[in-house]
Amino acid sequence: MTISYLDRCAKKRAHQYSLIPEEWRLDPIPSIESVPNALEYLRKILSPDELALTEETDIAVLLRKLASGDLSSLTLTRAFAKRAALAHQLTTCCTEIFFEDAFAVAKELDNHLAKTGTPVGPLHGLPVSIKDLFSVKGVDTSIGWVGLTNNPSPTNKSVAQTLRRLGAVLYVKTNLPQSMMMSDSYNHVFGQCVNPHNRALISGGSSGGEGSLVGARGSVLGIGTDIGGSIRIPAALCGLYGLSPSPGRHPYERGNPGQDIVRSVAGPMAYTLATVERYMEALPEARAWEVDPQVVPMPWRTQLAIPGARRLRIGIVVDDGVVRVQPPIARAIKEVVSALKAAGHEVFNWDASSHGHAYKLWEKAILSDGGEGCRKKTEITGEPLIEGMLVGKPDDELTTSQTHQLNADKYNYETDYLSKWTETGIDALIMPNTPWVGYKPWTWVKSSAYVGYTSIWNLLGYAALAMPITTVDREKDTPDEEWMGHVPRNASDEFNKAQYDVELVEGMPVGIQVVGGRFGEEKCVAVAKAIELAMERVGSKSL
Amino acid sequence: MTISYLDRCAKKRAHQYSLIPEEWRLDPIPSIESVPNALEYLRKILSPDELALTEETDIAVLLRKLASGDLSSLTLTRAFAKRAALAHQLTTCCTEIFFEDAFAVAKELDNHLAKTGTPVGPLHGLPVSIKDLFSVKGVDTSIGWVGLTNNPSPTNKSVAQTLRRLGAVLYVKTNLPQSMMMSDSYNHVFGQCVNPHNRALISGGSSGGEGSLVGARGSVLGIGTDIGGSIRIPAALCGLYGLSPSPGRHPYERGNPGQDIVRSVAGPMAYTLATVERYMEALPEARAWEVDPQVVPMPWRTQLAIPGARRLRIGIVVDDGVVRVQPPIARAIKEVVSALKAAGHEVFNWDASSHGHAYKLWEKAILSDGGEGCRKKTEITGEPLIEGMLVGKPDDELTTSQTHQLNADKYNYETDYLSKWTETGIDALIMPNTPWVGYKPWTWVKSSAYVGYTSIWNLLGYAALAMPITTVDREKDTPDEEWMGHVPRNASDEFNKAQYDVELVEGMPVGIQVVGGRFGEEKCVAVAKAIELAMERVGSKSL
Repeated sequence: MTISYLDRCAKKRAHQYSLIPEEWRLDPIPSIESVPNALEYLRKILSPDELALTEETDIAVLLRKLASGDLSSLTLTRAFAKRAALAHQLTTCCTEIFFEDAFAVAKELDNHLAKTGTPVGPLHGLPVSIKDLFSVKGVDTSIGWVGLTNNPSPTNKSVAQTLRRLGAVLYVKTNLPQSMMMSDSYNHVFGQCVNPHNRALISGGSSGGEGSLVGARGSVLGIGTDIGGSIRIPAALCGLYGLSPSPGRHPYERGNPGQDIVRSVAGPMAYTLATVERYMEALPEARAWEVDPQVVPMPWRTQLAIPGARRLRIGIVVDDGVVRVQPPIARAIKEVVSALKAAGHEVFNWDASSHGHAYKLWEKAILSDGGEGCRKKTEITGEPLIEGMLVGKPDDELTTSQTHQLNADKYNYETDYLSKWTETGIDALIMPNTPWVGYKPWTWVKSSAYVGYTSIWNLLGYAALAMPITTVDREKDTPDEEWMGHVPRNASDEFNKAQYDVELVEGMPVGIQVVGGRFGEEKCVAVAKAIELAMERVGSKSL
Repeated sequence: MTISYLDRCAKKRAHQYSLIPEEWRLDPIPSIESVPNALEYLRKILSPDELALTEETDIAVLLRKLASGDLSSLTLTRAFAKRAALAHQLTTCCTEIFFEDAFAVAKELDNHLAKTGTPVGPLHGLPVSIKDLFSVKGVDTSIGWVGLTNNPSPTNKSVAQTLRRLGAVLYVKTNLPQSMMMSDSYNHVFGQCVNPHNRALISGGSSGGEGSLVGARGSVLGIGTDIGGSIRIPAALCGLYGLSPSPGRHPYERGNPGQDIVRSVAGPMAYTLATVERYMEALPEARAWEVDPQVVPMPWRTQLAIPGARRLRIGIVVDDGVVRVQPPIARAIKEVVSALKAAGHEVFNWDASSHGHAYKLWEKAILSDGGEGCRKKTEITGEPLIEGMLVGKPDDELTTSQTHQLNADKYNYETDYLSKWTETGIDALIMPNTPWVGYKPWTWVKSSAYVGYTSIWNLLGYAALAMPITTVDREKDTPDEEWMGHVPRNASDEFNKAQYDVELVEGMPVGIQVVGGRFGEEKCVAVAKAIELAMERVGSKSL
C-alpha cells in the first residue's frame, strides 16, 4: 500500500513537471540557501516587459487595456503563466498546471473582442489562479489527497464557472495542506509549499499555494477558501490582502459530505486593495446566485466601500487573552492605532473576553465528524494522515443531539455578539490574524495550533480582511522585558512565545485583520482605505 | 403526572379566558352546528364602525390614517382586539392575550405622534398578531407544550423586536400544534383551533391560529412560520395570502436545539396581497440584520415586484406524481392557467418528477433528531405526544456521518434544481399547496400526511406564496370519472382520494402556490399581481 501511494505521488509530480514548458524550467533550481527570496530572484530573471505586465499594481490599468484590446489576453496570460511556472519551481505553490487550455481560452477571448468590440465580462482576459479544491474541467480536484488524483473533473463547478462568466482565464490551481485543516500547506501529492519572501519559511494555509503564488506575483488575483483563517493567514504571511467574506457573498463549491455548522467561504487574495475591491465589485455581474444555491443576490454596495469624511469608530484587540501575539504584530497594530488617531478617527478597546469560548464552539464544529472525512480519503490509498492538523479524533465525534445543541449555542453566541456589535456603533475591528509571524515547515503541527484570532469570524460569519502593514524589523521587534516576562497561559501560548525568533523572521511581512461585520465586505474595504490614507499621512509606508 | 399536566392546562385556559374583557365575552358561545361560519357571525355582531376598521382591505389607507393621526392606534387596536377576542371564542385561534399591554403601547405611539408629528416606523400603530413561538416580553412562549407554560419571556426576541421597530402593536399570539409538525393546530394547552369559514373543519397548521385569526379578520397582518408549509397550508385553508420567504429574508427566533438542515422561516399572512407586499417592503426599515444573525441585509426590490408589460413565463405543476390533488385544486389551477394564457402569458408544464426524491430528503432532515426534541418537552410534565405528527422515532435519528451525507445530497439536489430553474428562464411556478381542501379535526394525523407540495420549497429555500383563487363549488367540483378511476399510488394518495367529500368542503377557500425561486419574494408578488389582473380580465373574481 505504502509503495503504491508514494508511486502515485511521484507520477503525479512528474506529470506536473512535464506541463511546464522546457524554456521555463529552472536548471538547476537554486537552493533555498543560495536564493532564500523567490520574489527578488524572479525580479532578476524576468525581462522588463514581463515585469511590467506582472507587477502592474493598478488592476484598473490591466482591465482597461484588456477590454480595449491594447493588451491581448494571450500576452498577459503567457506572462503570468511563465512567472507562475518559475515561482512554482521555487516554492511548490501549484497543483494543476493547464497553460495550453489557458492560452486557448485567452485566444478565444481576444478573438471575441476583435470581432465584437465587446469584452466578455468585467474581468475580460485576466488570468486568475484558484485553490485546488475548485473543480476545473479536465484537471484533477485532488485537494492534497493521493486517492483523489487521476480523476479529472468533467465540468467547471460554481467558482470556475463564475470566473469564466466574468471573462477570466484560469491557468493554474494552487497548493494546500492535506485535510485543509492546517496553516502550513504541504501534502504527499505535491509537497511543501514555501513563502516567496523567504523560502525557509512557510506560506501558511490552507490557501498557502495561493498566498505563495500571488506573493511571488505569479498571479494578480487568486481565489482561496477560509473556514478558520485559510485565506487571511497565508495573506498575512505573504504580505497580501485576503478577504474572507460572509457565507453567501461569494460562490463556493460544495457537495462533499461534511459538517455544516461553520461554513467555509471563498474569497480573493491580491497584492493591492484595489484588486480585491474591483473583483468584489465585478462579482455580482456573474450572477453566481443562478448557479450556486448558497449565494445571496446582492450587489456590491459601492457607497459603503468609501471611507468618506466621517470619523470612523474602530475597535481594537491586541490580545484575545488566549495566545499573546509576538512583538511585530503588536507593533503593527500600535502603528495603525497611532495613525488612525492622528487622522482623527475614534479608537477604542474591544472586549474580546468571549473569544476563548468562541474558539471552543468553532473547534467542536470542526472536529465534529471525528475525523471520518479524512479517514475515508486516506483509506483509498493507505497514505498516512499528517499528525497535528485540526482534524477530529473518534472521541470528538458529536451525536446528532450534541450537534443540535452546538447549533443552538452558536446561534445564541452570534445573537449576543451581534447585539454588542450593533450597540457599540462600531465601523470595524482591528486585530491580529495570527499570534505568530513565521514558522519553518512542519513547525505548525507541533504548536498546539491556535487559530482563534481568525476562526471567530468564521463562526460568526463576519467579513474579515487581512492587510499588510509592515515587515519585521530586528531593532523594533527585539523582545522587550514585558514579552520576556510574559507567563504562558497554556500550551499554545507557551509554544508561541518560545518560537519567536526575530532573526528567523526578519524582513517578513506583518499584517493586521480588519473585521467588517456580517456582510461587511464593503466596510472592510472602506476601513482598509482609511488605514492606508492614515498610514501615508503619518509617514509609514505599507508594503 | 397525568393529572398534573391536565390541571396545568385547565389553569392556563382559565387564565387565558380571564384576559378577555367581560363585555367581549360570548355567552353562550354558539355551537358549531348553530354557527358554522365564524366570519359571517362576526360580521353580524360587530358594529358598522368596528367592521369598517377591521375589514378595510387597503392597508395603505390604514397606515396613512395612522401616520397622519386621523386614526388613533388605540382605536384601531381596540377594534382588532375585540374582534380577535370574539374570533378566539369561536375558533380557539389565540394562545397569549395581552390587550392591556397593547393598549399601553398604542397610547404611547399616539402620544409620540401627537408630540413629534413623526410616526415611529412604516407600520406605525398597526396591530399585528404573531404565532406563539415568537417571544414577547411578559408572556409565555409555550409553543403548545404544557411544560413550557408559566414561564414568561423576559424580553422581546428578534421578530417581536422587529415589529416594534416598525411601529407595530402586538396584542395576541396565536395557536399551533404540539411539535409544530402537523397541518392541524391543536395541543393540550389551548385545544383545537378551527377554520373561521367552517368551524367543523380545521384551519391547518402549524400557523393555524394565525390563519384562523386573520381569516376571521381578527388581524390585518399575522406573522407565521414555515418549515414544510406551515404558513402556506393554513393560508390556503383560510382563504389568505401567506408568504414563506427564503431563509435570511425575514427575522426568525431560534436558539432551541434542533436540526439545521432545513431551516424554518417566518413570513406574513394577510387577506390582501397589498398587505403582504407593504409589509415586506417595510421590513428592511427595521434593519433586522442588526439583531438577528441570520438575516441578510437586503432591500425590498420594488422593481421586481411589478409584473410590467412583459410576457411572463410560468411553469405549472398540477400533480407531482406522489399524491393526486382533489378536484377543486386541479380546477383552481386550470382556471389560473386559462386566465394567464388569455392575458398573453406563456405557460408550460414543469417537470416535477424529482419532487418525490426531494420529499425524502426533507423528511429525513425533519425526523433526524429521532424525536428527541419532542420527547424532552413531554417529559417535563408527562403530557402524551400526539400520534401521527411528522416527528422522528428513535430509528429515524441520523448519525453525524449520515447528517453530513444528507447535507451533501441536499446541496447537490439544490444545485441541479437551480440549474434547471435558471436555464428555463422561468418567472414563477404555479402549483397546489396541499392535495386536499379540508379536513375535520384529527383527520390529518390519520392521513399518512404528505406535505411534499409545500416542503420542497423549504428544502430548496425558495420563496413561495399561497394565494386564494376560488371556493369549492358543488357542481364544478363533483368528482368526475377520471378522479373516480384514479388508482392510488400509495397510502397518502389513497387516503387523500378517499377523504374527498364535496359536501363536507363546499364553499371552502381553494388556493394555489406561486413559487418565485431563491430570494424570489418580489417575483411571487409580481406574478400574483399578474394572476389577479388576468383573473379579473376573464371575469373570475378572486375571494
